[in-house]
Amino acid sequence: MTAEPVSMTDVRELVDGALRAAVGRLDPRTYRVAAYHFGWTDKEGRPHKAPAGKALRPALALLSARAAVAPQESALPGAVAVELTHAFSLLHDDIMDGDRTRRHRPAAWTVFGEAPAILAGDALLALAGEVLLEAPGQGSARAARALAAATRRLIAGQALDMDFETQRRISLDECVSMASDKTAALLACSCSIGAVLDGASEALSGALEAFGADLGIAFQLADDLLGIWGDPAATGKPALSDLRSRKMSLPVVAALNSDTPEASQLADLYGRPARSGEELSEAELAETAALVEAAGGRAWAEMEAESRIQRAAEHLITAKLPEPVRTGFLHIADFVTSRDH
Amino acid sequence: MTAEPVSMTDVRELVDGALRAAVGRLDPRTYRVAAYHFGWTDKEGRPHKAPAGKALRPALALLSARAAVAPQESALPGAVAVELTHAFSLLHDDIMDGDRTRRHRPAAWTVFGEAPAILAGDALLALAGEVLLEAPGQGSARAARALAAATRRLIAGQALDMDFETQRRISLDECVSMASDKTAALLACSCSIGAVLDGASEALSGALEAFGADLGIAFQLADDLLGIWGDPAATGKPALSDLRSRKMSLPVVAALNSDTPEASQLADLYGRPARSGEELSEAELAETAALVEAAGGRAWAEMEAESRIQRAAEHLITAKLPEPVRTGFLHIADFVTSRDH
Repeated sequence: MTAEPVSMTDVRELVDGALRAAVGRLDPRTYRVAAYHFGWTDKEGRPHKAPAGKALRPALALLSARAAVAPQESALPGAVAVELTHAFSLLHDDIMDGDRTRRHRPAAWTVFGEAPAILAGDALLALAGEVLLEAPGQGSARAARALAAATRRLIAGQALDMDFETQRRISLDECVSMASDKTAALLACSCSIGAVLDGASEALSGALEAFGADLGIAFQLADDLLGIWGDPAATGKPALSDLRSRKMSLPVVAALNSDTPEASQLADLYGRPARSGEELSEAELAETAALVEAAGGRAWAEMEAESRIQRAAEHLITAKLPEPVRTGFLHIADFVTSRDH
Repeated sequence: MTAEPVSMTDVRELVDGALRAAVGRLDPRTYRVAAYHFGWTDKEGRPHKAPAGKALRPALALLSARAAVAPQESALPGAVAVELTHAFSLLHDDIMDGDRTRRHRPAAWTVFGEAPAILAGDALLALAGEVLLEAPGQGSARAARALAAATRRLIAGQALDMDFETQRRISLDECVSMASDKTAALLACSCSIGAVLDGASEALSGALEAFGADLGIAFQLADDLLGIWGDPAATGKPALSDLRSRKMSLPVVAALNSDTPEASQLADLYGRPARSGEELSEAELAETAALVEAAGGRAWAEMEAESRIQRAAEHLITAKLPEPVRTGFLHIADFVTSRDH
């Protein structure tokens, strides 16, 4: 057990071997799609080094073992399982949302076809459960159950998000609840899975989950802010990208629900599904962003993110964590929310 | 514990409540698609009574509890989990294979769209694991692990099957191995899951799995025979339906691999992907069926099915099952293979 906060690079290295070993069990056809998705191979299956993902969930999983004063290595099956579940959801979401790019590369379904990408997602989801259940120790079944429940919420969140596309009016509560299912549930599970694997008390695992739930909303808020005001060079997406796809993100929904004149102008401009199919011009996109800001959507999202991080930190105090572990979690919270926007 | 072999109607009734309770946990959007798929509701979500599936896997799961001299009710979570996994695979396979009809009704993806059907399949897969892990008793984690491994094989089988569509030459071994993964793995899991939940010995669960593995191949052979020579009134599919879709089914692959003049005529007529897109005429379809038969594909499939059932029955003798349980398993084996073709 190291005393230092885990660095993201260390996590990636520690988890990568276990992740590759797990994915290596898949049949060669499904493996090919999964390995491409993880950035280990190119389209032809040749070794490749794509910029790796942030390994945020594995980092949280390893820290959560240390929260239970267990060696971080004991959480490796948990770290692998949450990363597999995350990968499953990205593979399927990209198909469902028609997103053609993932981490600056063509999304797997555009390369291999929809059917193989559906199947690879299925395989990673099943594998996540299998890896967890093979973990030694008393907590593996409890961890697998928690992950399955988080997956159910993740799916419910995606279903609600897709439904938003056909709705005229979405309340801010609905939108927060969607993010809470789609994004925060798996992060909450990641923050507690190492402790659960170690057989931690419900009090400890509950506090870690609560930390992750608030962190997850803060993460989504930060992401949504980046989706509008993020620097294309940093995000890898075009400027104002979430507005182009008329995404009902948190700042937009907050703005639409504000009791301001800008809210109705925004509703008029952004209003879907009435005008779906029609693309917003560059001028309209800039106007939309300005309206979201003028209606208070940006300020609300920034404040709410801060307040969620504050609340998240309070859960860590309740949990009475060892100091370096608490610092580690806060370091990640900082990383998550301080991205440039 | 009843002494009589389980009737399929009893099984459906016993399992239906538990299955509905499990699926009832899903969010309303995902539930809607799943309930339609199970035949509980129509497209608009109104109660509906579609002809139910065979409940073959749940029936095997309940029997497998009795094989371990446990009450059949103790296997209910297992029965629900295998049925959920089967439903997941049907939902996704129909999308991947472009099949528009399922149990005489429009397939779910044609009614709700691909994305909601992908998501519903995901939800049922995650739910299967969750239901099993909530089962009381020592065996639940072992059962969940076995189910996850079976799911991995099911996926590998589907991946191989899709690959067959682009291959010129498939060996009979490859084709049997595909069926063994795609069809037999989940049946083998169903035949042992009740015993595993009860903490049965590896010897007993292994014998039950071996029974299910042979039963599964026999089941696929019977299905493939029906797909060519089945009565449309009974199968609900057009005559010669598997030949229309140029499916590389076991009788066809056996015929293609026979060292007969008919084999090359068949390869010429059926040869894909060279002519894919082109439909076979009714006359060509009849000729294809005749060639498969003349090349020995039909006779081989019939004999192989019988021999698999024979081997399956031997595993039951090894397992030293209570007589009514053995009879129950054989009753199902008979049901599976004696369908009209």
